[in-house]
Amino acid sequence: MEQDYYKIQGFKASAVRAGLKKDNALDMALIFSEKEAMAAGVFTANKVKAAPVILSREVIQTGKARAIIANAGNANACTGEAGAADARMTAGLVAGELDILPEDVLVASTGVIGKPLNMDKIKRAVPALAGALSPDAFPLAAQAIMTTDTFPKLSLFDGLAGGLPYRILGIVKGAGMIMPNMATMLCFILSDIRIDASELQSALLSSVETTFNRITVDGDTSTNDMVLAMANGLADNRALTGADLDVFSKGLESVMGGLAHMIVQDGEGATRLVSIKIKGAASPADALNAAKTVANSNLVKTALYGLDPNWGRIMAALGRSGVEMREQNVDIWFDNVQVVSGGLGKGAEQEKKAAGIMNNKEFTIMIDLNLGRHEDRIITCDFSHDYITINADYRT
Amino acid sequence: MEQDYYKIQGFKASAVRAGLKKDNALDMALIFSEKEAMAAGVFTANKVKAAPVILSREVIQTGKARAIIANAGNANACTGEAGAADARMTAGLVAGELDILPEDVLVASTGVIGKPLNMDKIKRAVPALAGALSPDAFPLAAQAIMTTDTFPKLSLFDGLAGGLPYRILGIVKGAGMIMPNMATMLCFILSDIRIDASELQSALLSSVETTFNRITVDGDTSTNDMVLAMANGLADNRALTGADLDVFSKGLESVMGGLAHMIVQDGEGATRLVSIKIKGAASPADALNAAKTVANSNLVKTALYGLDPNWGRIMAALGRSGVEMREQNVDIWFDNVQVVSGGLGKGAEQEKKAAGIMNNKEFTIMIDLNLGRHEDRIITCDFSHDYITINADYRT
Repeated sequence: MEQDYYKIQGFKASAVRAGLKKDNALDMALIFSEKEAMAAGVFTANKVKAAPVILSREVIQTGKARAIIANAGNANACTGEAGAADARMTAGLVAGELDILPEDVLVASTGVIGKPLNMDKIKRAVPALAGALSPDAFPLAAQAIMTTDTFPKLSLFDGLAGGLPYRILGIVKGAGMIMPNMATMLCFILSDIRIDASELQSALLSSVETTFNRITVDGDTSTNDMVLAMANGLADNRALTGADLDVFSKGLESVMGGLAHMIVQDGEGATRLVSIKIKGAASPADALNAAKTVANSNLVKTALYGLDPNWGRIMAALGRSGVEMREQNVDIWFDNVQVVSGGLGKGAEQEKKAAGIMNNKEFTIMIDLNLGRHEDRIITCDFSHDYITINADYRT
Repeated sequence: MEQDYYKIQGFKASAVRAGLKKDNALDMALIFSEKEAMAAGVFTANKVKAAPVILSREVIQTGKARAIIANAGNANACTGEAGAADARMTAGLVAGELDILPEDVLVASTGVIGKPLNMDKIKRAVPALAGALSPDAFPLAAQAIMTTDTFPKLSLFDGLAGGLPYRILGIVKGAGMIMPNMATMLCFILSDIRIDASELQSALLSSVETTFNRITVDGDTSTNDMVLAMANGLADNRALTGADLDVFSKGLESVMGGLAHMIVQDGEGATRLVSIKIKGAASPADALNAAKTVANSNLVKTALYGLDPNWGRIMAALGRSGVEMREQNVDIWFDNVQVVSGGLGKGAEQEKKAAGIMNNKEFTIMIDLNLGRHEDRIITCDFSHDYITINADYRT
């Protein structure tokens, strides 16, 4: 990874080993905006919300922020009043070091639920983070927020607004507790574009809907999910007009779509990335529900791992999804190989070809319900022995 | 297993190797009622229904039946008109051999979806099944309907109606595609009680609701689920009065509850059977949904496999279940060991004790939402490497 590449004017980052992870890896990251930035955020729909989720949601209400402090290894979730105080103290420590207001500090945590944060370690780490801030450290920050992720995830978009160049940089961590409902764990988006906080918020919301809300690893939604965005305005563009705002929104969607893709690629234990595409659904909700049910079926996911185009399990998942369907209308393809036509198998020869397609790391299963004109898609992964190993042993 | 024990007057059974399973094990079973029996049935809620489901549902409409023919190895699902014709032909072959009407023959299939039945094998098997009918062969029939099950599942109840003894015998197959929605694959209930078809149907429905609809292995609902019951009246009791009908209903529930329990015990790859019990829910639907969401969470189930009392994952599952909840109200116990009080962990000492409880093959996780007075429970199992192995390699 070329570190130089992942820079963005007006923003700095740093990462340190605070000792919160079991293996003494990088586990805390700081992102700092040299000038006040417009801020937006989307937070977990889980009713159990981690302390940093509650705090950062309050910061986002103001529409502006200066810094994001994040840790991995401990989620600071289900930690009660003490957890809330720890999140506030963390924001306060960062504010003191950076000479900014505590209410301009966004806080994010990921890791084990239900354990108190070790504040001694965080008190030692924050000054080190502040001292290490650099324009080159975003890849390190992306590494520091990883939990069971196997690689850091960054994505870039370069656009023009009113003829002036700007950039969008995103980092994310994923791997587990990933389900199409809001976002996936932690995602930080930075841009030098000049944009209103409300426009940033609505662009963020609509991008979340088409990217992070369209992936799944294991059907579990985290207590700590958040997508945060800061835009510092250094691109000096004029107020975003219709076309430029569209380009920005598309750029944001492309950055977040790229990150979402990486999350599924790096899904816990995943060996295959599979797009489940629904066509011909009777309604938009049916298209989404059908895709979600197939994408989250353990039996479909284990068949993907076994490289078995077991379309009977896809039919069974569709049948229990609650969507309007007629068995005899259903067509199913693995990429360009049709295995089901009118609800019936196309035979062993076609299944053999489909099994060949499953040797690819990425492919699409297209399901045409042939009932209406609505479509949707969910990106999922297979379900392997390693998922079990990773999650049976997670805390030990 | 004492074969003598599993007898019931007026019913015979048989099992043969028809060659439908990969390993040449017993794979077809026949159950015959010497006199006309009242019949009831509950069928899968999956919109994709196997041919035998559609046929047997029609038979049950008449309220009577004489025989059940079942095969494992091939589900005869997603097989279109040809599959429907195969199911009808199977019923016809049985009727011919037993000299009964084809419309008195119930048909059940389980196994791979989407492959045509090999009717040559079935034509050879049916006469052999008819010739082998015996009062002692119910354990063999229970073995013949197994797919990934590791042991045959039978359950008995002996009761009195108007002072006269009667018996209820049930056999079931389970293991995978098990989710609390209707029933689980194939269950056959036989009794010598005298009962109206409509009373039998309503007792069956209410027992399904509290037994098979309260278990889960993997959250997938089959296309072939059915629970069939036949009662031949040989007990010669008078029309069932209130108290006797209650005893029968309880007896039926106990037989089906026992079978449901065995299904989870024998869940694919399962090493632990865990009751997820919800108390203090704001509504009955909330109690059930909370139990279902926790019981089907892959992260909870892998933690069960890892013998890790990772209550944070339980909190996260509750939080995304959509039920009314307040984090600070939640208490969680592993049997008699409390690990969460008012939403907060009770510490490492209690978790160590809970981990000790998890060494037992069976235990209860009790979650008190402390909001209302409603409760429910789902029986689930852990999620192991073997589940992946069994389902990745199922068709090969």
